[in-house]
Amino acid sequence: MAGNTIGKAFRVTTFGESHGEGLGAVIDGCPPGISLSPEDFAVEMRRRRPGTSSVASPRKEQDMVEILSGVFEGLSTGAPITLFIRNQDADSTPYKVLSQFFRPGHADYTYFKKYGHFDHRGGGRYSARETAARVAAGVVAGKVLERLGIRVVAYTLELGGVRARSFDLKLVEKSPFFCPDLTASTKMEKVVSEARKQGNSLGGIAQINVTGCPAGLGEPVFDKLDADLAKAVMSIGTVKGVEIGAGFQVAKLKGSENNDPLTPEGFCSNRAGGILGGISNGDEIVLRAAMKPIPSIGLEQDTVDRNGTRGKIKFGGRHDTASIPRIIPVLEAMVKIVLADHYLRSRMFVASKPPGKKC
Amino acid sequence: MAGNTIGKAFRVTTFGESHGEGLGAVIDGCPPGISLSPEDFAVEMRRRRPGTSSVASPRKEQDMVEILSGVFEGLSTGAPITLFIRNQDADSTPYKVLSQFFRPGHADYTYFKKYGHFDHRGGGRYSARETAARVAAGVVAGKVLERLGIRVVAYTLELGGVRARSFDLKLVEKSPFFCPDLTASTKMEKVVSEARKQGNSLGGIAQINVTGCPAGLGEPVFDKLDADLAKAVMSIGTVKGVEIGAGFQVAKLKGSENNDPLTPEGFCSNRAGGILGGISNGDEIVLRAAMKPIPSIGLEQDTVDRNGTRGKIKFGGRHDTASIPRIIPVLEAMVKIVLADHYLRSRMFVASKPPGKKC
Amino acid sequence: MAGNTIGKAFRVTTFGESHGEGLGAVIDGCPPGISLSPEDFAVEMRRRRPGTSSVASPRKEQDMVEILSGVFEGLSTGAPITLFIRNQDADSTPYKVLSQFFRPGHADYTYFKKYGHFDHRGGGRYSARETAARVAAGVVAGKVLERLGIRVVAYTLELGGVRARSFDLKLVEKSPFFCPDLTASTKMEKVVSEARKQGNSLGGIAQINVTGCPAGLGEPVFDKLDADLAKAVMSIGTVKGVEIGAGFQVAKLKGSENNDPLTPEGFCSNRAGGILGGISNGDEIVLRAAMKPIPSIGLEQDTVDRNGTRGKIKFGGRHDTASIPRIIPVLEAMVKIVLADHYLRSRMFVASKPPGKKC
Amino acid sequence: MAGNTIGKAFRVTTFGESHGEGLGAVIDGCPPGISLSPEDFAVEMRRRRPGTSSVASPRKEQDMVEILSGVFEGLSTGAPITLFIRNQDADSTPYKVLSQFFRPGHADYTYFKKYGHFDHRGGGRYSARETAARVAAGVVAGKVLERLGIRVVAYTLELGGVRARSFDLKLVEKSPFFCPDLTASTKMEKVVSEARKQGNSLGGIAQINVTGCPAGLGEPVFDKLDADLAKAVMSIGTVKGVEIGAGFQVAKLKGSENNDPLTPEGFCSNRAGGILGGISNGDEIVLRAAMKPIPSIGLEQDTVDRNGTRGKIKFGGRHDTASIPRIIPVLEAMVKIVLADHYLRSRMFVASKPPGKKC
Repeated sequence: MAGNTIGKAFRVTTFGESHGEGLGAVIDGCPPGISLSPEDFAVEMRRRRPGTSSVASPRKEQDMVEILSGVFEGLSTGAPITLFIRNQDADSTPYKVLSQFFRPGHADYTYFKKYGHFDHRGGGRYSARETAARVAAGVVAGKVLERLGIRVVAYTLELGGVRARSFDLKLVEKSPFFCPDLTASTKMEKVVSEARKQGNSLGGIAQINVTGCPAGLGEPVFDKLDADLAKAVMSIGTVKGVEIGAGFQVAKLKGSENNDPLTPEGFCSNRAGGILGGISNGDEIVLRAAMKPIPSIGLEQDTVDRNGTRGKIKFGGRHDTASIPRIIPVLEAMVKIVLADHYLRSRMFVASKPPGKKC
Repeated sequence: MAGNTIGKAFRVTTFGESHGEGLGAVIDGCPPGISLSPEDFAVEMRRRRPGTSSVASPRKEQDMVEILSGVFEGLSTGAPITLFIRNQDADSTPYKVLSQFFRPGHADYTYFKKYGHFDHRGGGRYSARETAARVAAGVVAGKVLERLGIRVVAYTLELGGVRARSFDLKLVEKSPFFCPDLTASTKMEKVVSEARKQGNSLGGIAQINVTGCPAGLGEPVFDKLDADLAKAVMSIGTVKGVEIGAGFQVAKLKGSENNDPLTPEGFCSNRAGGILGGISNGDEIVLRAAMKPIPSIGLEQDTVDRNGTRGKIKFGGRHDTASIPRIIPVLEAMVKIVLADHYLRSRMFVASKPPGKKC
Repeated sequence: MAGNTIGKAFRVTTFGESHGEGLGAVIDGCPPGISLSPEDFAVEMRRRRPGTSSVASPRKEQDMVEILSGVFEGLSTGAPITLFIRNQDADSTPYKVLSQFFRPGHADYTYFKKYGHFDHRGGGRYSARETAARVAAGVVAGKVLERLGIRVVAYTLELGGVRARSFDLKLVEKSPFFCPDLTASTKMEKVVSEARKQGNSLGGIAQINVTGCPAGLGEPVFDKLDADLAKAVMSIGTVKGVEIGAGFQVAKLKGSENNDPLTPEGFCSNRAGGILGGISNGDEIVLRAAMKPIPSIGLEQDTVDRNGTRGKIKFGGRHDTASIPRIIPVLEAMVKIVLADHYLRSRMFVASKPPGKKC
Repeated sequence: MAGNTIGKAFRVTTFGESHGEGLGAVIDGCPPGISLSPEDFAVEMRRRRPGTSSVASPRKEQDMVEILSGVFEGLSTGAPITLFIRNQDADSTPYKVLSQFFRPGHADYTYFKKYGHFDHRGGGRYSARETAARVAAGVVAGKVLERLGIRVVAYTLELGGVRARSFDLKLVEKSPFFCPDLTASTKMEKVVSEARKQGNSLGGIAQINVTGCPAGLGEPVFDKLDADLAKAVMSIGTVKGVEIGAGFQVAKLKGSENNDPLTPEGFCSNRAGGILGGISNGDEIVLRAAMKPIPSIGLEQDTVDRNGTRGKIKFGGRHDTASIPRIIPVLEAMVKIVLADHYLRSRMFVASKPPGKKC
């Protein structure tokens, strides 16, 4: 009972492998009348694309998005939208070792245990390249949110121990690391370059801010907005922690410090991160994710082969040094997908309110 | 499109309100042949029950679990199992203020915005009392896991700034806070008592350890085991952050430090927290959750009423000072529910492997 | 992976056994603001109740519906609505034979094969008594449809070979068989009485008409409105055939005869049964269901026991002679549940239309 | 909340339009280790393909199935399998009229009402060409069933009033109408030829037989095997009626006639059609579907335009005269998909049976 679909109303199913024909997504539930063309994907795909900065994998992929269905005369029709990104620069040579040895920190071992048979070339289905399909789907979700004035911006908060100290979001796109603190961004470049020389990799933290989200998105109990955001973000292979608003800091706060007082003009503070009881409160939604260092490193590591025999692996491949910056558009995409889904889900209630009640 | 169900194979739907008839859960998908009687719930319900320690709400509830369906001659039949817990000591008097003012930090405001009409008595559907139904469902999930030798233990890592330093899990049940460090536990009692005197509340951190979980649970891409765990844990109202394994610490690690080397005897370290690529790797599963201070405090707070007019609220009620310790069995229950679900989901693949392949 | 839930937006999960504590339903997704009290269920429950006519089982059940959750101050809140009907007059004595022999035409054999362990008393989960929970849930669905002016009426078209020839729906409630042709109804009484004397049972056909349904309900491809109606109706144990509009008669029609011409005033005919391409067209929705004779008969039948050894069974119990008339409110309930579900699902699209487009 | 997915464990999502890039399916949940190559689809696609007989549409499509994901070294991996069929011979010219007038019997009107904006070329998403994707997905389902020895055969029972009288299933593939009675098949050719000359179309009935299905497939209550089969078959646009086993004939039978007695050697008769209480009983599964005459006819018909103004439509296009024979492989595909889904769903229970119980 596979798990390649996310969302209940805006349903995104991704498919494809790193070194197969390509990657794609089917979106079922996108409302009709959304304008969509292959060009709409260019900016986001470029932001995620390998080979665009000195810090990223040298694999060259155009990552052109083909629209295989669901769009007519430039507008979505309500039918499933299928997006497809052909693989063009796959080089499976360095992955031959994977048919024998498991890479520490990767899913080689668990896929072998679960499936027996899997496409190990370039990580196959569990390659980070799968996130290209997420970014493409996120563009469509973004179009749904755009009409509502909802805007999602992710940025790098910390990379290799270097932390941003200033947060002018207008500067995010000026940094190769999507870091709003350009001084920190320069330092990040340095630590990345050093790690790369050592054949090592780095972890980091990103923050995602959502502005313009109305109150009322999210469902009670299990499908809380923050629960679904946590799942969506944690479903990115590199992410090991997620927090909302004040996050882990709440452990040290008192109720009087953590509660956000209400005033006629809105909330005085936002330690809740824009979500109360799993439902958006109209304030900015704030979450953070921690990304582990890329497990593919140039250093020799202890491992075992498929028979459980001890061995060493030193993995060549073409890899990033950190999931930042390429993870940034992926984080945005996942948040957009969840919001589009909850927006459509919430629609069912709005108009069924008894007359005279105001939402 | 409501969200009161979790799980795909082991599906738990909870229902009920804090001051209504009671709370309950329907479990659809529990395998037949699991022994189950009302007594099986007693231990877990008592661990979560209000009024059992000096630090918890004085509301007295027996929290007896009735089995309304799905069990015959002491065994589950494969039919839906319905569990029901009657409310007995509900006192709605202090909640009258809620029909007018919103409590900061609670979901009063967002429910009003979303639904217009809701049961505000004692928080109604968004009361922490809803977690009683989760704990009951967790007992059934635990029975499914028991056969497989999977064991889930949660404990308090930090409360009100006091952190555990020793981790002998055999001591957990000796502490009123489920804290394995009994010295820390005594300090926690002190900070809780002080906070209560001030009419204030405290946050904390809990850790959950899963032992005996075989490799292979979890689905690729979106329904990763860690993604579903993150969602389940974040769906508890008080939780603001979730991390797996090394969690947010990964941001400061290098790949060579974070990767867990494989040996014929198993993994050398467990920074992955027992999950690789979203699939359990056979090692201990480790996650942590951050709980915000209980928003109900005795201090006066700024707020607004349903018309948006400024006001003050000082909330009486009968409340805990911290969600710890009562949240501990709830965390365990959520983890058990997710594991039972993924265990049943994974069953579909096991036997469909081609002959000669070993799982 | 059990199947006790129907619907995606208006989700109904039923639970309970014929001779257990009782039967019930949890409805997740009912909009807030719907008025609901225990009295609202009385009429429909009485229409389905055993023991109300000379043709029905003598089991006496009050079938009072308790509302365990989801209603506050007489209105639904948007939280799950739980309905519960206690069993009061269960007599398991005649069912002892079922722990040994399988009844022909019943699910004894297949449940034994599937589950090994099941509650066989009175058919347990597969008893027709499970439909009491469906009728209760249908009342809530009916309340959702009522606001929209959608009305669902089922009636008996044929019973034991006697077929209705006149169709004044105002007369339906005057017939003990819900048959609009009162002359046919009198004949039906006779054939039922004869069959009962012989210890035998009878099959029949019912028709369901839906008036007031707007165009646009139903989803393309798999979740077509007619596909979901077929599933819902076929999920009633006694039903062996479903048809929409002209149904099986279409096999003998030509395209020019079967197509319903459009005029500015609406469709000229309704062989489509109100559904085109799986979406309601604004015309009356018409479907029919065929019900098999009740398998519990007083005559001796060949069968086998749990070890596969040949035996004879002559089953006492308290049974109806035909699923008509008690199936009539069940059919209505299932149709109402599907329509409420599709109405809520369709809501997501309506308001997301681009401005200037008219729906 | 769109409905382009069917199945819970073996999930098939179809996408694409008649005159767009092509049509396809994503299958999520197919077990690993199933052999699969593009050639495997050739036979079934040819059976459904237009232009292969004198009675079918002259549109020429090769209907080559590309496998875009999920297969590695000739075996499924457990990842989503994506199948794609490019449109090659689409001619949208005759469909221009559809941007103005609604075709009686087609979904033009309801799609316009529901979506405002849709791809009307060749019926777009609601074209019968969508079924090509179903047939492709059915091939994969068939591979899953093959291992279990389950075989699905559909055939024509009636076409344009001509009914088969002999049922040697070995002859089915010798008839251009998949009719086992070759004499009837010859008569069918005649009535089809006449109808075509008149610019008219014909309806029919097909039967589907499933052999080799073990007892125990199907879930109680709503996801009964017959309920899911009814939905799957009714979801084919042309189908207006579905029946299982004795079907509508049960209305005229008595219980003593309709019950299938059990003997140590199996059931004596099969009026149940292989399903009891929604669960397969190990006997042959038998269902029938009624197909309406193709609504596209060459005769002039009354209709209205998008503004509701009266008009006439005489539709050219390239169309079949009857959905038979091309619907036959589609019916088989839908039944295979449902069986593969229920087989995988049932797997979750098998191993959780209490020891000592035999399934």
